Amino acid sequence: ASQVGDAAFTVLLLWSVLETEDGQPFDPPDPRESGNPERAVHQDLLQREDRGPHLVRQPLRQLLRAALGAELGEAVADPDAALLDHLGIERLLCVMGGSMGGMQALEWMVEYPQRVASAIPHATTSRLNAQGIAFDEVGRQAIMADPNWNHGDYYEGSKPALGLAVARMIGHITYLSDESMRHKFGRRLQDKSDFSFNFDADFQVESYLRYQGRKFVDRFDANSFLYITKAADYFDLGKQHGGGSAVVALSKARARFLVISFTSDWLYPTYQSREIVKALKKNGRDVSFCEIEAEWGHDAFLIPGERLPKLIRGFLERVHHGGAD
Amino acid sequence: ASQVGDAAFTVLLLWSVLETEDGQPFDPPDPRESGNPERAVHQDLLQREDRGPHLVRQPLRQLLRAALGAELGEAVADPDAALLDHLGIERLLCVMGGSMGGMQALEWMVEYPQRVASAIPHATTSRLNAQGIAFDEVGRQAIMADPNWNHGDYYEGSKPALGLAVARMIGHITYLSDESMRHKFGRRLQDKSDFSFNFDADFQVESYLRYQGRKFVDRFDANSFLYITKAADYFDLGKQHGGGSAVVALSKARARFLVISFTSDWLYPTYQSREIVKALKKNGRDVSFCEIEAEWGHDAFLIPGERLPKLIRGFLERVHHGGAD
Repeated sequence: ASQVGDAAFTVLLLWSVLETEDGQPFDPPDPRESGNPERAVHQDLLQREDRGPHLVRQPLRQLLRAALGAELGEAVADPDAALLDHLGIERLLCVMGGSMGGMQALEWMVEYPQRVASAIPHATTSRLNAQGIAFDEVGRQAIMADPNWNHGDYYEGSKPALGLAVARMIGHITYLSDESMRHKFGRRLQDKSDFSFNFDADFQVESYLRYQGRKFVDRFDANSFLYITKAADYFDLGKQHGGGSAVVALSKARARFLVISFTSDWLYPTYQSREIVKALKKNGRDVSFCEIEAEWGHDAFLIPGERLPKLIRGFLERVHHGGAD
Repeated sequence: ASQVGDAAFTVLLLWSVLETEDGQPFDPPDPRESGNPERAVHQDLLQREDRGPHLVRQPLRQLLRAALGAELGEAVADPDAALLDHLGIERLLCVMGGSMGGMQALEWMVEYPQRVASAIPHATTSRLNAQGIAFDEVGRQAIMADPNWNHGDYYEGSKPALGLAVARMIGHITYLSDESMRHKFGRRLQDKSDFSFNFDADFQVESYLRYQGRKFVDRFDANSFLYITKAADYFDLGKQHGGGSAVVALSKARARFLVISFTSDWLYPTYQSREIVKALKKNGRDVSFCEIEAEWGHDAFLIPGERLPKLIRGFLERVHHGGAD
């Protein structure tokens, strides 16, 4: 079990917990620094359309892999399946993913029902709600408002660093929760005993957000941000795989499911996980659901805790032993 | 009663519901278009400090009035009291305000305890939490990231329209709620039957936010946005009037209180209203509290309904008749 299990985890936690060489969470690289098929696509589109980047019509998983700069040799129609074939893995014990990784996990379940025994989509949704799209859109607008963005063609000049930083700051608010921000920052001041009465960062929360914004622009490409958020907005399991119905889409799934949400996650709220569970139950699928009590908002799924590993371990053991219990 | 009551309302609902001549909700005018003491102050500061705008050290109410461009003749130490004196009003039946207007109402209660019989702070707080400050800060960063902002000195050139639009878009998300956005927009598309696969507005919610952003820049000044949000972040009733304690600050109040919050308001959440109520009760003050069931988020306090007017009417009648019931 552990070998198959480990392989599954190695492959399929890619998006959410992959670390870079220096131990930092992995984010898509700046296309300038990689072999860069995305930029080639992007430049091609720019020249052809002469009005800014256009999204390639491909499903979320492929788009994410392109943004990740995953190099699987030549472009393949289905990079995930090709990767498994390359690794010689016929069947996975489990596909696990959180947030957008959870969207990918769900898509796996309906595209490769025979290759997967179980799935753990967590802190995720079968489609974003209006509020989620709204936050993504404001982030995109912040980037596109930066004159350095230059309709997506900034690779020879200055990067749209200020716009991307604002987009990231918005993101960070949505990853936390009111409660966790109160505990983490409250109204505490940053390295001062009273207000500055100017527009410097007075509060710790301001300083934190500015830092996160600055840090992000060194390691993340602005166009990738646009493509990835748009792909997330477009993702709609029912629309793409069930003629508009998540129930129909998930009827293709054969795996056992463990769906997990977190109480304070308002970006991917619990009701969205419940919708997935309901659709699976309507199909008579084997599904467990757990809402974990956590104050850290959407970030909770990335923060080490006791509950999540325990749930996963118990679930995988049951799946591996093949029982119906 | 109605005369005193009307006068009170005329004066003190100023910030939240004052309408312009064409029936639109009132927002602070562009300083370019008014006599403009604020700009004079601003330019003076720019020349003196040579590093961007600095906040005048004045309490929230005065700052708001400055931003509102209210012209009371010469600058006065206390424009609110001066206005009442000018109108010949000795004592108010009620001071009512929502959101930042509620902050002002609270400040009134501790600054003019003898001049007010009652108060209705609603959808408000004695101080913003970290999440509220965070959203304000990201809005400010969006404005200051716009090169047209030019460290606040843009009155002779192009306005920082794109930055201000992004700030407003962020604001609009926080004024609504997850639930109301689902009802109002869901994932419905704007004037199209399928995704555009580019960065146009596909979803209605995107179109709505872009429209709100564009509209805002025609009638609102970017520096005013910076000053007002910073003033709101600084507002802390306990710090300013109670040596750090809202209980001490509110011990100065003599009025009867009706505190109101709205269930889906996550910008000024109910627990903040409860904190005000708790501080008043600790002082033995006469306070009623009501949390109104509403799906419209923070906007709920501006949306006509049955519950709010009924509550206000009943409360004011009791206050006017002076009973202890």
